[in-house]
Amino acid sequence: MLGSGLIGRSWAITFSRAGWQVAMWDREDGAAEASRAILLTLLEDLAAEDLLNGQSAAEVGARVRVTKTLAEALEGTSWVQENTPEIVGIKREVWAELDALAPPDAVCASSTSGIVPSAFTEELPGRGRCLVAHPINPPYLIPAVELVPAPWTTPETMAKAEEVMRAIGQSPIVMTRELDGFVMNRLQGALLEEAFRLVADGYCSVEDVDVGLREGLALRWSFIGPFETIDLNAPGGVRDYVTRYGGLYERLYKSMQRRADWTGSVLDTVEGQRRERVPKEGLADRQRWRDRRLMALSRHKRKAAQDFGN
Amino acid sequence: MLGSGLIGRSWAITFSRAGWQVAMWDREDGAAEASRAILLTLLEDLAAEDLLNGQSAAEVGARVRVTKTLAEALEGTSWVQENTPEIVGIKREVWAELDALAPPDAVCASSTSGIVPSAFTEELPGRGRCLVAHPINPPYLIPAVELVPAPWTTPETMAKAEEVMRAIGQSPIVMTRELDGFVMNRLQGALLEEAFRLVADGYCSVEDVDVGLREGLALRWSFIGPFETIDLNAPGGVRDYVTRYGGLYERLYKSMQRRADWTGSVLDTVEGQRRERVPKEGLADRQRWRDRRLMALSRHKRKAAQDFGN
Repeated sequence: MLGSGLIGRSWAITFSRAGWQVAMWDREDGAAEASRAILLTLLEDLAAEDLLNGQSAAEVGARVRVTKTLAEALEGTSWVQENTPEIVGIKREVWAELDALAPPDAVCASSTSGIVPSAFTEELPGRGRCLVAHPINPPYLIPAVELVPAPWTTPETMAKAEEVMRAIGQSPIVMTRELDGFVMNRLQGALLEEAFRLVADGYCSVEDVDVGLREGLALRWSFIGPFETIDLNAPGGVRDYVTRYGGLYERLYKSMQRRADWTGSVLDTVEGQRRERVPKEGLADRQRWRDRRLMALSRHKRKAAQDFGN
Repeated sequence: MLGSGLIGRSWAITFSRAGWQVAMWDREDGAAEASRAILLTLLEDLAAEDLLNGQSAAEVGARVRVTKTLAEALEGTSWVQENTPEIVGIKREVWAELDALAPPDAVCASSTSGIVPSAFTEELPGRGRCLVAHPINPPYLIPAVELVPAPWTTPETMAKAEEVMRAIGQSPIVMTRELDGFVMNRLQGALLEEAFRLVADGYCSVEDVDVGLREGLALRWSFIGPFETIDLNAPGGVRDYVTRYGGLYERLYKSMQRRADWTGSVLDTVEGQRRERVPKEGLADRQRWRDRRLMALSRHKRKAAQDFGN
């Protein structure tokens, strides 16, 4: 685990919960130790919520150690997960080092959300075993992870990455080639774009958009996704759906060909309406509440899958 | 309740569960009686799942009666919900009749998903009390409902409609003026457009998109919506989020300026991949499974709101 911030720590929990020995290293002195202390507290929370697969927090926590050097962290590892700042210059530097030090058969993955893997792996001798494995945070509660190959990432690397991710309980999205924004941020971006446009044009409030998802669209999406949703929304399946509603969506697309300036006055509106609901000083509490709800949803989904299947 | 198909029946359940007396009428002879029989079976299912607020199926079912004429159905009612086919000519005809027959103080709502209210209410003497109340089906499990005014819908009508919807347990999205696709289909359309594009361009599979939502984005959206999600995803709230990631989304928007032809070869891909997972003859079973999961999610959300708040 390279980098011990929010993402590095979350990955450390995800791997160690699955039985892996995790070595955590951070360029900044003392950062990894401090992060490990937070990790132990988080593990207590997860144990209390029955989200450690029956293991105790101590048991899982004992698998996470901090190393003084990068070389120590990489020694004998079969998976490297890099979680350094989202700056391509830093990534290039770190990746040169890690590619030189990691065992030749180790898979090397970056958590980056905004940089394609070719941007920092092109010059590396071991570039064939490098990819992006982008989680939604925190991966120990949100299983989806995007596996993104550079043009030179080998099929064996992709296959092994998929296997490892499934083995630790994640749900990999396996891209065939790299693309800015990958899959999830592109889908999120497309929806947010329309959300900002609707609010900017004054058709509805910020809360109305959120209600439309949390009391509407996202209920089915949270267990079947958008393609299965439309496939089940017409008697003859997705082709029937497109026959019935394709014309509507074609009309709508035409009326979406203009960007809302997210940084313009709509941002004042969005921020103003959000701060009415949750004042700035309440954000940290609300984030903890969100994590509780996410844990409860995670338990619910596990139970529903047992009761009804997936 | 005008029209006794899937939507009319679902609304009848939603209103009667909340204690309303519901009169169901259908232009087609015998259709409303047949629909009421299905409704009684559905109520048994909902009672078994503890989704009738502690009432028995018989108790709720007794509030739904079938009438022989439209005039009888409208007599003394305070809310009219129209659920006829999505053809503007039919709507115009039906609405002329219902506006003439409904009590002057009744709110008249259409369930249409694809027609703006001005298209079938302009000529009506009582057009001020007419609006669209568009549910996601079934409204007794999915609370979001879009209230869409025509230019002449009175503020009193909108206020009363909002009040009635909240009283029967729905979560209204109150639009300030009409717009093709309303709010939810526009948000869904924007996301689907990108989903079709990703699959058409071969970046990922249909299942990958569904995983990205059901094991990723839609988990948080299902209880906080997309605006609250980004508001909680940066330490300083939504403005901080836009500062950090606005540039990424601006780049992505530029690369989305081209439509995927949903009816083209991508539809063969989508349909092919869906049919591998659920063959055509399995769709009806899968729809029943979806409804079970939706009921379980509905119970989970009620309990989570009690345990942790909303």
